[in-house]
Amino acid sequence: MLGNFSYKNATKLYFGEESLKYLNNELPKYGKTVQLIYGGGSVKRNGIYDAVVEILNANGKTIVEDAGVMPNPTADKLREGVKLARENSVDFLLAVGGGSCCDYAKAVSVSVNCDDDPWEKYYIRFEEPDCEIIPVGCILTMAGTGSEMNAGSVITNHEQKLKLGHVFGEEVMPKFSILNPRFTMTLPKRQMVSGIYDIFNHICEQYFSGEDDNTSDYIAEALMKSVIHSSLIAVENPEDYEARSNIMWTATWALNTLISCGKQTDWMVHMLGQAVGAITDATHGMTLAAVSLPYYRTVMPCGLPKFVRFAKEVWGVKPEGKTDKEIADEGLKAMEGWMKQIGVAMNLSELGVTEDMIEAIADATVILDGGYKVLDRDGVVEVLKASL
Amino acid sequence: MLGNFSYKNATKLYFGEESLKYLNNELPKYGKTVQLIYGGGSVKRNGIYDAVVEILNANGKTIVEDAGVMPNPTADKLREGVKLARENSVDFLLAVGGGSCCDYAKAVSVSVNCDDDPWEKYYIRFEEPDCEIIPVGCILTMAGTGSEMNAGSVITNHEQKLKLGHVFGEEVMPKFSILNPRFTMTLPKRQMVSGIYDIFNHICEQYFSGEDDNTSDYIAEALMKSVIHSSLIAVENPEDYEARSNIMWTATWALNTLISCGKQTDWMVHMLGQAVGAITDATHGMTLAAVSLPYYRTVMPCGLPKFVRFAKEVWGVKPEGKTDKEIADEGLKAMEGWMKQIGVAMNLSELGVTEDMIEAIADATVILDGGYKVLDRDGVVEVLKASL
Repeated sequence: MLGNFSYKNATKLYFGEESLKYLNNELPKYGKTVQLIYGGGSVKRNGIYDAVVEILNANGKTIVEDAGVMPNPTADKLREGVKLARENSVDFLLAVGGGSCCDYAKAVSVSVNCDDDPWEKYYIRFEEPDCEIIPVGCILTMAGTGSEMNAGSVITNHEQKLKLGHVFGEEVMPKFSILNPRFTMTLPKRQMVSGIYDIFNHICEQYFSGEDDNTSDYIAEALMKSVIHSSLIAVENPEDYEARSNIMWTATWALNTLISCGKQTDWMVHMLGQAVGAITDATHGMTLAAVSLPYYRTVMPCGLPKFVRFAKEVWGVKPEGKTDKEIADEGLKAMEGWMKQIGVAMNLSELGVTEDMIEAIADATVILDGGYKVLDRDGVVEVLKASL
Repeated sequence: MLGNFSYKNATKLYFGEESLKYLNNELPKYGKTVQLIYGGGSVKRNGIYDAVVEILNANGKTIVEDAGVMPNPTADKLREGVKLARENSVDFLLAVGGGSCCDYAKAVSVSVNCDDDPWEKYYIRFEEPDCEIIPVGCILTMAGTGSEMNAGSVITNHEQKLKLGHVFGEEVMPKFSILNPRFTMTLPKRQMVSGIYDIFNHICEQYFSGEDDNTSDYIAEALMKSVIHSSLIAVENPEDYEARSNIMWTATWALNTLISCGKQTDWMVHMLGQAVGAITDATHGMTLAAVSLPYYRTVMPCGLPKFVRFAKEVWGVKPEGKTDKEIADEGLKAMEGWMKQIGVAMNLSELGVTEDMIEAIADATVILDGGYKVLDRDGVVEVLKASL
């Protein structure tokens, strides 16, 4: 059943081919000095950077450049960004990029006016912000993380070999996000596919938990079916605007808290994937893909009815004459077939993980409950070995 | 495909059996004088009124009573409510009831500081508010209209025999809504069923439009499946908390703009139903139920692929060996069977409409486009006659 919950998500979304122009509607609401956050050179090569700078200039903004946000933004980079924001008395943080840039912007946002070390405060001690927050806006260039409409932020500490997330309160969500599906088309195909799997797994992690009848699970199935359908079109033709737009929109709703309202969730695949990311720096979605089937096959016997439902509703498995176990197996088999078809990493070896790294990854794995079966450390090691 | 759109919905929702206590979190954000809006005596009989007043008193609020909001709130009542708000310099409007109370509260909200006659300004001339808006909160006691998380407001003018709606901007949406499924259990069964059909039809009106592949349509199917499933439990046992909570949550998402993002919509069933309501004062959901099958059977040949999809995805119609027309017919037949099972009005005669009223209803019907076939006035008359 739907448990007790509250829901608020005030991010304003501008979606479509024309959406960048609405940056003009938003900028006047914020102060003069804008920290412009982006990653490597891709937004410069594809012209998005120039288009954004032109609009910032037209709105009389002073730009503070904050380039070089890496795919897994680090605690060191975060500390640099906070210093930059303080030195320039920044009024607004504008992230132009994928989830990494947006996650990083939120981390800077809650840290500028706070004395503590942000890594220690938010990602180790999981404290809440007790200082003024700098507002964030986002211009999204990669679909996947959902960071554009949520308050989540994942930061990596290479020295400590940890990649940890903090889900802040609704006040940390971006004030606006600009979603132009064409901006995602400049991505290499492998990045697109990684994002698609990230979306799918976000939905799985909210779906595979609880035994109740719940509207959220119906919506989760809808989002899964839409992203599966569009992914098969997009891998054939990455320029298909319809498919890319559905993927982008599905990503947003897969992780903006809607489908977890009133239900348990099980984020263990993310915990395992993030630990792999902390050790290998592999692409986020691929780390999830590599560990998810071994994980779900491990927990399936404890949550069989939901895996049966998944098989029938999401993959169209015909149940006639089959045991529940057979139906559930067939569903995961169908999921495996789809994963191979779109081309995600099917095991950790592909990501450079070797058996001698398993213990370190297990050490970096945060164990959460909420799922059909709570793993102990041995269970984590088993799933990781099965994922090699 | 997903067209260009913007989306923002900042209503804070508190959901669950404990949700009323969160009124204490919200009241301090607003001024001292609260206009307490409710309908007949039901909220007094079931204790909800007393519980709300206790919280208002504990928060030091001055209460301005605004009782007697009718199921189809009238322009005259609206003018009285505006007068009351002005005379008492009201700071906040708190609606305790169903969609009627919430719609009415929004209408008062945009009219208190505006000199024009609100019926003429908003419902006849469809102008936007150009005056300060009084904030609205909602404590919902009936699931159906979705008014708790949108900016829609429908008002009836009996003299002019018109029932017209205005969808305002996001600033008119309730600041918060309190959704306690137990509060909906005091409703008579016929009211519950009417609300359930209202939900279902809201989804249909956003679904049966456009030929494109669109994530919104997948979500629409999910909401339809959830409400069908839970409705069958709730008509057997109206006290089933799980079913009533899913119905309540589905109602909110069926009409808070999400599933119409980036796509065409076809609100003709609402236009027909509202015209019936203007002439007969019949319960809103029942007016929709009475006209919807004749309407959808009329437009079906022009949107056959969507009706085929509806049959297969929502009703599980097996397509093997059938023409598209047969599949689509079977889908609408299944919908008809479900409507009979839950006990909605299956024709206009049940609502007291006679053939001599058809012309007046047609006169009151606003013709919209967006659907698979745009009716002319003769088409409206034909659908109404087929609904008798």
